[in-house]
Amino acid sequence: MPPIDPDTLKRYREAVLADFPRSREQLARLVAIPSISAQKRALPEAAAEVRRLLEEEGFKTEEYTAGSAPVVVAEMGEGAQTVLFYNHYDVQPPEPLDLWQSDPFVLTERDGAMYARGAIDDKGHLISRLAALRAVKAVRGKIPHRILFVVEGEEEIGSPSIGNFVRDHAARLKCDACIWEFGTVDIHDRPLIYGGMKGVVCLDLVARTVDRDLHSMYGAVVPNAATRLSQALTSMMDAECTVTIEGFRDGIRALTPEDNAALDALGDDSIPMRKNHNIQRMLGGLTGREYMKRLIFEPVLNVNGISSGYSGEGSKTVLPAEARAKLDIRLVPDQDPARIAPLMRAHLEKHGFHDVEVQVIEDGGTPARTDLSNPFVRRCIEMARVAYGKEPSVWPIVPGSGPMSSFIEYLKVPVSTFGIGWEGGRVHSPNENFRIQDYLDGVLHGALVMDGGW
Amino acid sequence: MPPIDPDTLKRYREAVLADFPRSREQLARLVAIPSISAQKRALPEAAAEVRRLLEEEGFKTEEYTAGSAPVVVAEMGEGAQTVLFYNHYDVQPPEPLDLWQSDPFVLTERDGAMYARGAIDDKGHLISRLAALRAVKAVRGKIPHRILFVVEGEEEIGSPSIGNFVRDHAARLKCDACIWEFGTVDIHDRPLIYGGMKGVVCLDLVARTVDRDLHSMYGAVVPNAATRLSQALTSMMDAECTVTIEGFRDGIRALTPEDNAALDALGDDSIPMRKNHNIQRMLGGLTGREYMKRLIFEPVLNVNGISSGYSGEGSKTVLPAEARAKLDIRLVPDQDPARIAPLMRAHLEKHGFHDVEVQVIEDGGTPARTDLSNPFVRRCIEMARVAYGKEPSVWPIVPGSGPMSSFIEYLKVPVSTFGIGWEGGRVHSPNENFRIQDYLDGVLHGALVMDGGW
Repeated sequence: MPPIDPDTLKRYREAVLADFPRSREQLARLVAIPSISAQKRALPEAAAEVRRLLEEEGFKTEEYTAGSAPVVVAEMGEGAQTVLFYNHYDVQPPEPLDLWQSDPFVLTERDGAMYARGAIDDKGHLISRLAALRAVKAVRGKIPHRILFVVEGEEEIGSPSIGNFVRDHAARLKCDACIWEFGTVDIHDRPLIYGGMKGVVCLDLVARTVDRDLHSMYGAVVPNAATRLSQALTSMMDAECTVTIEGFRDGIRALTPEDNAALDALGDDSIPMRKNHNIQRMLGGLTGREYMKRLIFEPVLNVNGISSGYSGEGSKTVLPAEARAKLDIRLVPDQDPARIAPLMRAHLEKHGFHDVEVQVIEDGGTPARTDLSNPFVRRCIEMARVAYGKEPSVWPIVPGSGPMSSFIEYLKVPVSTFGIGWEGGRVHSPNENFRIQDYLDGVLHGALVMDGGW
Repeated sequence: MPPIDPDTLKRYREAVLADFPRSREQLARLVAIPSISAQKRALPEAAAEVRRLLEEEGFKTEEYTAGSAPVVVAEMGEGAQTVLFYNHYDVQPPEPLDLWQSDPFVLTERDGAMYARGAIDDKGHLISRLAALRAVKAVRGKIPHRILFVVEGEEEIGSPSIGNFVRDHAARLKCDACIWEFGTVDIHDRPLIYGGMKGVVCLDLVARTVDRDLHSMYGAVVPNAATRLSQALTSMMDAECTVTIEGFRDGIRALTPEDNAALDALGDDSIPMRKNHNIQRMLGGLTGREYMKRLIFEPVLNVNGISSGYSGEGSKTVLPAEARAKLDIRLVPDQDPARIAPLMRAHLEKHGFHDVEVQVIEDGGTPARTDLSNPFVRRCIEMARVAYGKEPSVWPIVPGSGPMSSFIEYLKVPVSTFGIGWEGGRVHSPNENFRIQDYLDGVLHGALVMDGGW
């Protein structure tokens, strides 16, 4: 691995800084398109804009259809090695809108940060990849690799189509390494590199107890859908929210010595998390290594929302006929996502919840891992040391999810991760933002990774 | 008690039928006003319309202010005995609007029934009282009693002000009997007379676990507000939804021999309830006498609604920071409503739910009972036999709630009940309606009660 000499590093820093207005202009165009995959909004428009952006950089682009949204594939340059970038142009819904301090679809600078829905996840990352490639061209004249992009529009609904797309186009997408869509500095502002992702299954639990809402006086004798749903949810976890559904933990890999060593090297994120988010007590009362272990290696049953009956002002004495909980269930290697809904149905049946139904929204999110000893991954870690001037934080698995498993399975390449996020970035929440300095560091890191081979 | 001779009864029936267009015209005017007390909407406008309606019948009216809405008091006629009618002009919110088959604020006839928000509860009842008085005048030339009306506008938010109003105006409201705002035929179409009401306390339970919504990947370690709320709710009840909060059952009166006899005389409502409402299984799997006993004599913790996080289409992988459940808790004599919130707080504290708060919406709904052997009540029962030609269904306590306890405590009079409702009347739900025949029967019953003394 060639070291970066100080002069070249200086030229990279200057190139990245000088290029920021271009990133800003490109990102403003992209966040202005409300491409919300959960609502199938403006997805072709966003794909078209992604193609324009890539073509401005010299890429040849193609558009495919996969599921409910176009997939953009782009190619540029040549070299002994091919690097594939995976990104997505869809975003989460911006609600609740009243908590945004500026329009979620207008890129807005405040206090050294840039705000918009998608600022980090993932439009900001896509633009930061282009900026990194521009920096290599500016400093070296050309990029020493062949570059591919795959940009999809269903990531925020669990990427139901990209797995089959990668399988079906494996020859077209043949590459030597993949750079994942998302990265971040950790809660201690160290660059974070991760070696895998949790899987995710999205389900709705729906309780229906009676044909229609009744006067609440019948609550003495008629089952209440909201109560039944609460009871069903509670039955699936212990008091500290560890999932207790029979068979749920089948297949979970035991921690390896490398996993334990990685855990030993991590800091205690629980202290800044509690402080930054005003949390009384973490689940299980955990801190330190046990906290990090649960965050990284444990599966989770998470309630995204519950809706039932009356939620307006004052009181309405009604017995709701229906209640719905939206869940995401995060899985760790090698839990099988396809087994989760059947296990949950069996649990409900066994515990007498005949009035609670499981509706699968998406159950294809397989957990994934890459070997941290791979040379490409080691280059990413080494260049993080150079770009940030500090030791990176290496996580065996990141608690988030994505379709990484398909890339590993069908393309048989190492996947690495880095980027522009931070713990206060409010991803999936109102006031999503990146800090401009994190953006510049992330672009520099990307440029250094692309500067040579491995 | 003078019997009603067949000729007089016939004249009453004819008078009631002939008067129906007038009821319809009056009710259409009243339901057109969206007087939703939970939203403080159009309450003065509805009070003004109530005064106009009463003045058209010859009443002198006055308007007082109590809490957030006017109270209308009206007086007419003279006699050895004074009968006070208690009614209310406020209604429940009409939501969900998409389930209404006609505009909730336009009185609409369909298949022998009249539909509108307030058709039964309580605008239809108010108009049916006026129709009964008109029938007595039509048949007898005059009403043999002095009549008072008290019509309030906060009943649907738990009547927070009427108790003090009755206490402060006890001399003005002095009377010999009170006719309550609401009545119904039972599920077997027998006229229902009840001797008391449950109390009600309305509370919000609010779970807050973190300063703002987070990406759901943190669900492994950060408490989820929706999950915590579900756990808190579940902890307050056993599997069959009997409340298990320590001290909650303190003060519940043991059943008397009369209570048991009344239970013995009732039918099994569980069979038609299950059939009419497509209910798989009643709470506790109860039927028959045990079902009726739970319905009438048991307190209830009812969830009116839950709201938390994302409830839109598809998925949004968010960890909600806040979750809210709206509850009504129905109490039986002699549970003390003021003790419920403190008991619930103690329960949450004891079970570690430091992140769940109790917000009192209304806690003044005291349970109430009247002696069924009282002569006025006996007249109401006897006249139900005459009007409906069948044996009435006498319930020691109705499962619904209202401020009856204040009338009993401050005016020291028997309270009796009858009216125009039916089991399919969808009170508090979309498509609230009364059957026209039930309306005519209820008006006839009221007229016969008012036809003489006791």
